[in-house]
Amino acid sequence: MADQYTRSGDDKRPTEIPAIRWEEPPEGPVLVLLDQTRLPVEEVELVCTDASALVEAIRSLAVRGAPLLGIAGAYGVALAAVRGFDVDEAASALASARPTAVNLAVGVRRAQAAHRAALAEGGDVRRAAAAALAAARQLHREDAEASGRMAEHGLALLDELLPGGGHRILTHCNTGSLVSGGEGTAFAVALAAHRMGRLRRLWVDETRPLLQGARLTAYEAARSGMAYTLLTDNAAGSLFAAGEVDAVLIGADRITADGSVANKVGSYPLAVLARYHHVPFIVVAPVTTVDLDTADGASIEVEQRPGHEVTEVTAPQVPVAGAEAGGGIAVAPLGTQAYNPAFDVTPAELVTAIVTEEGVVSPVTAEALAEVCARSRRVSAD
Amino acid sequence: MADQYTRSGDDKRPTEIPAIRWEEPPEGPVLVLLDQTRLPVEEVELVCTDASALVEAIRSLAVRGAPLLGIAGAYGVALAAVRGFDVDEAASALASARPTAVNLAVGVRRAQAAHRAALAEGGDVRRAAAAALAAARQLHREDAEASGRMAEHGLALLDELLPGGGHRILTHCNTGSLVSGGEGTAFAVALAAHRMGRLRRLWVDETRPLLQGARLTAYEAARSGMAYTLLTDNAAGSLFAAGEVDAVLIGADRITADGSVANKVGSYPLAVLARYHHVPFIVVAPVTTVDLDTADGASIEVEQRPGHEVTEVTAPQVPVAGAEAGGGIAVAPLGTQAYNPAFDVTPAELVTAIVTEEGVVSPVTAEALAEVCARSRRVSAD
Repeated sequence: MADQYTRSGDDKRPTEIPAIRWEEPPEGPVLVLLDQTRLPVEEVELVCTDASALVEAIRSLAVRGAPLLGIAGAYGVALAAVRGFDVDEAASALASARPTAVNLAVGVRRAQAAHRAALAEGGDVRRAAAAALAAARQLHREDAEASGRMAEHGLALLDELLPGGGHRILTHCNTGSLVSGGEGTAFAVALAAHRMGRLRRLWVDETRPLLQGARLTAYEAARSGMAYTLLTDNAAGSLFAAGEVDAVLIGADRITADGSVANKVGSYPLAVLARYHHVPFIVVAPVTTVDLDTADGASIEVEQRPGHEVTEVTAPQVPVAGAEAGGGIAVAPLGTQAYNPAFDVTPAELVTAIVTEEGVVSPVTAEALAEVCARSRRVSAD
Repeated sequence: MADQYTRSGDDKRPTEIPAIRWEEPPEGPVLVLLDQTRLPVEEVELVCTDASALVEAIRSLAVRGAPLLGIAGAYGVALAAVRGFDVDEAASALASARPTAVNLAVGVRRAQAAHRAALAEGGDVRRAAAAALAAARQLHREDAEASGRMAEHGLALLDELLPGGGHRILTHCNTGSLVSGGEGTAFAVALAAHRMGRLRRLWVDETRPLLQGARLTAYEAARSGMAYTLLTDNAAGSLFAAGEVDAVLIGADRITADGSVANKVGSYPLAVLARYHHVPFIVVAPVTTVDLDTADGASIEVEQRPGHEVTEVTAPQVPVAGAEAGGGIAVAPLGTQAYNPAFDVTPAELVTAIVTEEGVVSPVTAEALAEVCARSRRVSAD
């Protein structure tokens, strides 16, 4: 189960609360999550004492973002192991909590494999649990390091594609320190450009229906002191037409062997707009997001989320007067059906480059993608 | 000033309340508007006794939609005349209440011209006021008739472009009887297809930031009994990619001499998506929306609306707990700037056809557009 404690965001100080952390109070180990559904209004921590609380936090999007889901999944397996629950049962529930983000299953499998290996080597249950936790911590560290390397590679790519500097970058959804053990994926690149004085403006898509751009990316941009402007997703077209976008930078939830990119719904229309306006469309994601076992975009299972996310408007300050079943305020007539895919798929031919911690894949081909993944495996094997 | 009276929408019966009507109670003539900001939750009427109340209703979007704004503007001039206010002052305030929709200024000028002509012919003030009112009523009637003819022409065009029937139509914003003296523009075509059993589904873009699709088009679709599904604007890309959209039908706020179409923000990205997926992109608008005096899309003044429409979420049931300055709930950090154009501009080369009451313009060229406008003027002169 999950407890929670709250720190009001009213004082406007930058939070020191990380998106995820492992703690070992006297009552036993817990996984502490910053509840992202309550940002930017208040900083509430969710304290998970078992994997089922974490599954619920993943489903409700309290914890979200492809790389962070991998870390959370690994810690969830460790939590089950350390607290003496059935590890395989926990791993199975965690891995399937959200279907599209490949990192979640990868993180779960990694901690589970460490646990199994320790048992197979004759270790006792405590030693196996310690191995699972060590694997989770290792993944957490690696992800933080990967962030830094993605930012470096991404910044170099921007400088190559846009030698004039003064970048005006459009981004979608949320890809900063809230989704990562480090500073994130696409946002980390924008942040690096900002620190080098080369970011003129970050255009932040609000990202309907759950407004991760308005709630989370604007929050991270404001904290970093960068110049940013929020817009409705459908206003991006006007910015492209006016020549106000130099590049699009987004993250990814799954990249298939052929270079198709599943990411937050609304990414694909940006890719089409970027192509039409001859603007680079750049995907930033760690190698763990690449799923060579899935052949192509058509094979990706796209999560369909409840219609009430569209037919009702929710805000971080729920409950509000007149709230409906989904916890929000109805904005459509009763009984309205909604089409609410969480992700869309952008084919490789619309992607200018994929930036990973192991280097930049451009043009995006199956061969180049396989090569960058092999490089990562070689590094891991060292 | 505007009074209001309310009928609760709870009983779910189709409303009989028209979007606009002229009434003459014993206290003096009034213009009664259905307050579109409160739909679909409740049917509230705004009773305007002077032009300044109408200007406020136009600015707040209580009354909206290009054709209806023309009718409202004409009645507003008549109201000023009948009640003995300064007609030219009222006309000037009304014509500039919203800058992009050309119909508003056209409607205002038409009633103002009738008023002036009556005075110039030696008519007294009462006779001139009656002339202004007659001009407004004539425009109202003509618009209703134009709706019917646009629906006919549009349906014929759909049958030509999509001979298989079973149309799956995507629409944006709201273009039905709430924007018109009749059944509207783009929505009227979808409605005609529905009545002929040829509409398989209406895909309704929610239309951020003010959710006219969710609030108003879904309301009109539900009342008409058609199969419809609501989606976030950014999910349209997934529908195109899946081959689920046979045609896009939208309205227009201004069409320039070169065939550029200003319409609700989010229309242009749909045009780019439609082109990329080889799907017809059809604009439905009366000839009064064509502004031959504006040469091209670049010359259109696009209304920039307040940022709080994006940084706060509002719903028809305001006030809500925690409401901010703009009347909504903050969803972005304090101090967040927003880019909030009300419209975007689609160039003629992305428009498959413009359907008017005088016929279909396709391909969209300056010559063909001028020709259809001339046809309209010939009809008016008859």
